[in-house]
Amino acid sequence: MDKIILDCDPGHDDAMAILLAVGNPNIDLIGVTTVGGNQSLDKVTYNARAVLEKAQATEIPVHQGCGHPLVRPLEVAADVHGETGLDGVELPEPTRPLDQGHAVNWIIETIMNNEPGTITLVPTGPLTNIAMAVRLEPRIVKRVKEVVLMGGGYHVGNWSAVAEFNIKVDPEAAHVVFNESWPVTMVGLDLTHQALCTPEVQSRIDALGTDVSSFASGLMDFFREAYRNNQDFVDPPVHDPCTVAYLIDRSVMTTRRCPVDVELHGDLTLGMTVADLRGPEPSAEQCHTQVAVALDFDKFWDLIIDAIKRIG
Amino acid sequence: MDKIILDCDPGHDDAMAILLAVGNPNIDLIGVTTVGGNQSLDKVTYNARAVLEKAQATEIPVHQGCGHPLVRPLEVAADVHGETGLDGVELPEPTRPLDQGHAVNWIIETIMNNEPGTITLVPTGPLTNIAMAVRLEPRIVKRVKEVVLMGGGYHVGNWSAVAEFNIKVDPEAAHVVFNESWPVTMVGLDLTHQALCTPEVQSRIDALGTDVSSFASGLMDFFREAYRNNQDFVDPPVHDPCTVAYLIDRSVMTTRRCPVDVELHGDLTLGMTVADLRGPEPSAEQCHTQVAVALDFDKFWDLIIDAIKRIG
Amino acid sequence: MDKIILDCDPGHDDAMAILLAVGNPNIDLIGVTTVGGNQSLDKVTYNARAVLEKAQATEIPVHQGCGHPLVRPLEVAADVHGETGLDGVELPEPTRPLDQGHAVNWIIETIMNNEPGTITLVPTGPLTNIAMAVRLEPRIVKRVKEVVLMGGGYHVGNWSAVAEFNIKVDPEAAHVVFNESWPVTMVGLDLTHQALCTPEVQSRIDALGTDVSSFASGLMDFFREAYRNNQDFVDPPVHDPCTVAYLIDRSVMTTRRCPVDVELHGDLTLGMTVADLRGPEPSAEQCHTQVAVALDFDKFWDLIIDAIKRIG
Amino acid sequence: MDKIILDCDPGHDDAMAILLAVGNPNIDLIGVTTVGGNQSLDKVTYNARAVLEKAQATEIPVHQGCGHPLVRPLEVAADVHGETGLDGVELPEPTRPLDQGHAVNWIIETIMNNEPGTITLVPTGPLTNIAMAVRLEPRIVKRVKEVVLMGGGYHVGNWSAVAEFNIKVDPEAAHVVFNESWPVTMVGLDLTHQALCTPEVQSRIDALGTDVSSFASGLMDFFREAYRNNQDFVDPPVHDPCTVAYLIDRSVMTTRRCPVDVELHGDLTLGMTVADLRGPEPSAEQCHTQVAVALDFDKFWDLIIDAIKRIG
Repeated sequence: MDKIILDCDPGHDDAMAILLAVGNPNIDLIGVTTVGGNQSLDKVTYNARAVLEKAQATEIPVHQGCGHPLVRPLEVAADVHGETGLDGVELPEPTRPLDQGHAVNWIIETIMNNEPGTITLVPTGPLTNIAMAVRLEPRIVKRVKEVVLMGGGYHVGNWSAVAEFNIKVDPEAAHVVFNESWPVTMVGLDLTHQALCTPEVQSRIDALGTDVSSFASGLMDFFREAYRNNQDFVDPPVHDPCTVAYLIDRSVMTTRRCPVDVELHGDLTLGMTVADLRGPEPSAEQCHTQVAVALDFDKFWDLIIDAIKRIG
Repeated sequence: MDKIILDCDPGHDDAMAILLAVGNPNIDLIGVTTVGGNQSLDKVTYNARAVLEKAQATEIPVHQGCGHPLVRPLEVAADVHGETGLDGVELPEPTRPLDQGHAVNWIIETIMNNEPGTITLVPTGPLTNIAMAVRLEPRIVKRVKEVVLMGGGYHVGNWSAVAEFNIKVDPEAAHVVFNESWPVTMVGLDLTHQALCTPEVQSRIDALGTDVSSFASGLMDFFREAYRNNQDFVDPPVHDPCTVAYLIDRSVMTTRRCPVDVELHGDLTLGMTVADLRGPEPSAEQCHTQVAVALDFDKFWDLIIDAIKRIG
Repeated sequence: MDKIILDCDPGHDDAMAILLAVGNPNIDLIGVTTVGGNQSLDKVTYNARAVLEKAQATEIPVHQGCGHPLVRPLEVAADVHGETGLDGVELPEPTRPLDQGHAVNWIIETIMNNEPGTITLVPTGPLTNIAMAVRLEPRIVKRVKEVVLMGGGYHVGNWSAVAEFNIKVDPEAAHVVFNESWPVTMVGLDLTHQALCTPEVQSRIDALGTDVSSFASGLMDFFREAYRNNQDFVDPPVHDPCTVAYLIDRSVMTTRRCPVDVELHGDLTLGMTVADLRGPEPSAEQCHTQVAVALDFDKFWDLIIDAIKRIG
Repeated sequence: MDKIILDCDPGHDDAMAILLAVGNPNIDLIGVTTVGGNQSLDKVTYNARAVLEKAQATEIPVHQGCGHPLVRPLEVAADVHGETGLDGVELPEPTRPLDQGHAVNWIIETIMNNEPGTITLVPTGPLTNIAMAVRLEPRIVKRVKEVVLMGGGYHVGNWSAVAEFNIKVDPEAAHVVFNESWPVTMVGLDLTHQALCTPEVQSRIDALGTDVSSFASGLMDFFREAYRNNQDFVDPPVHDPCTVAYLIDRSVMTTRRCPVDVELHGDLTLGMTVADLRGPEPSAEQCHTQVAVALDFDKFWDLIIDAIKRIG
């Protein structure tokens, strides 16, 4: 069973990723860490704790990380996630206090104190914490099993014509993460724009009739509206849980191995994840990065709905 | 009937574009201008004259243009087109002398001396000449009917992961051309990688049994080999004549209107044609640029074969 | 006697450069060309003609050049030169019509039709025309005697912390000019900020008591005020005539040979003339660029005053 | 008495800074931290411990920091400091073991556990550790008394025409440090190229006749040779101790207050410390950065020699 650290900035779709990780029996969520992104650090940290409270998963530690990208000022996505970062639902008061210790140090210690090859990093926000951890303790690279991140896009952008929010907000951090030798799976907009919460999907969530299903549905209502108004979508793409779904069942998506790097200097392309898709697909030995291509829509939503149902 | 100026750097596929423009009865090729690109300026100018000789079109003037990109040093594509720029075939000695007058000045005079809205520019090499003409005489922008260029790619690169040769070689010139207000159709790699000279197509060319068909077939033999060795293609993509085909018959390709700009400052993305495909398609009033999307393969090759046949 | 082409954008100090070139018997001013810069192209062209009218030099042709930098949009210096580009004085109506032919073509023809090594280019505005001429006819590089330009600064900026107006407005053009193999003398702000029109100097101009001296003094009044308000100067630096003074008498300034290139991609340093002053001074054979260092203040103003006096 | 943390990469001149900080009675050196720079992290950490051993200052803790710049690969200065980073002298075996805890965490804890306004940071290598500390714990910015760093240059470069080694090696880290609101004094090459170890100075060191003076003199012998061969200097500039000297006695140098930022995107100017020296000098309230301008040569070397003498 995969031990995962979810490094996130909830965020409506981060919340769905937490629910999936908590509710699915094949995922061992050993901790949640937070990073400034969709909203400011204090807001997303509160949100992470509140979502775990809602999911009855107060045994899972939450460590707060970096509130500021490596080099640039923070940009938040208030248009997409509202002023709180989780607008549209009522959050429970977290009963468990915030855990001591900076997320970056906790990530390092957890990786160094577990067996090599047992910890998977699942970043669904800007990659600031992960890059900081690598620079502070480079030995984690060889000990991490893999990095499965939501971010980027090889042919799709949302924060510019060709860049995605998580990467564009801290492109230098993303550059660090993509250039270390660990296995990286980029679950980008190419994939996550397929993970649409259609009305049919949402009625399946509603039909569960639980407190958590109604919470999830509330998130989706706000998200639908935000995506309609800001990005001309009919149904909202639920990005972040795609990463967790992939760790539960690799067949939930197809992937394509290719070199990926992050543009740090372009005027029009800053923060673009540049994938080199020319020529034949390299092997895993030749290339440590891969991108997600096609989603098994039904399998994905079955996993989400099953997890919500299990939480009860 | 469209009056077109073909601004090119022959090059195997430029040669095919010349043959199509000469052989098709609905195109009035009023002049060929040359630019350093696939090979050095003197070589491509010689090639342009030789191809016109072969096509029995010595009435068409050839003006030599710029041998050096606007800002950067010239890079040629000897791997793709060989040392002469037209390796693999025997070229006839041109009988018509090179026309006097710099291509840039000739382009300006031709546009200014014809009725507004009657001249179409068809650049199939780096955009140096066109950008120079705009800067020397900005009034041409309003007088040109449209610009239909081969270059770039919204999702495909060949000279880097995300940039195409013609644009990457002189990105500043491309930046000028895409940012003027004239209508621009970008026929990029997304489209031209569909224009493959398959063995079936080539046997149709061979079957014509003329001197020109055997010349064209020789070009394709070399091009197939070059693309196999350098870019891992089975059949070679015949880029440049797609522009001319589109002017003959708009239904030969579908297009998508969207803003396009050229990245001048990226490390990984220099010379990328950045197309913003987010949101709904803008109207022609809102957006003066469009990109070619899907080719009608059969229609395209029918036009080529018909033109070769007509040259006789 | 040096045959010079003054490529300028008058501009108060450009006007002083014209007066010096017209009035000094050792300079053969064979033509004035204009470029968009301190003000828009039509305004500076009118100003050039009007200053020649005032200087009774209507035999000198004026050719209009480029109104738009090579790649970027034009920025003008209305804060320094006013809405007309020559605010503060009354301009005579030019009697000589504007000469036919684009400045870029006229520069090329003039260089190609004169003996090699006889024409000196003196650009005192953005380098657009000169770069365009080089790209249109690269053979001029070997035929020009030298380029003595006002622009840049190795340790001083005015349009940003480290960049000067003429270079920053069209950095790509400047990049072209500095990277061709002709001899280039950069008379930058390091030098021209020494060429201050002090009250003592101005009373010497006033004392000449001619129509032209009163015109020059009017220019200086406006310039003093503009520099006081915008750049915190007590007396205005009279940049452009330093170039002409150097051609009249090399001892008017000391120079330092060193590699100079233009930054095209910096956020803070765009358009900086980067001079490499490390190590020992290279020879003219090793290095085709030099920068102006120290001005002989008295010699400089003696030349100016003498020229104004001679015009009468 | 200033409590200082010396964050360094010894390096010959870093070693001199350690000697000055240890030997001077007005400096309270509370710890040495190390960073990859002049040589790899393990080498400079060993060197720091060995120099403290030589200086009989084994009570001072040494914490090892980052071995890799924030974003880019490490470049070392083996040409200047040799393969060991301290070539040319024999180093004692350190008796005190390396202290536990990463330098970045130790810096943060030390600042947070001391009274606000009591700790001065003295970085004399790349600014990686300091930037990491700021990102991990932003509250240190308000608690640090000031940052006095060796690096950069407003008019002088050594690792490129306009950039200095410490800044160019990790420009993103420098960008972070200069853009935080704490008081920063940049002791750059403009100043340190005045701190030459002339033969006269070195004979004064030699005349002390101690083990440490002979060690210091050995460092200077190697440094003289390296600077002669690589940078065309007659006497070597002893950069790093200038920072410590300034903290002992502000009159050892004059400074100029001005905005300073670091260029991250230039081709020719990457890592340049861009100082805006235009206009009148701002006040400390208006501007938190200042640059060192002129050194009191005698006062500086008197401090160094006095410190070496006191170590005994």
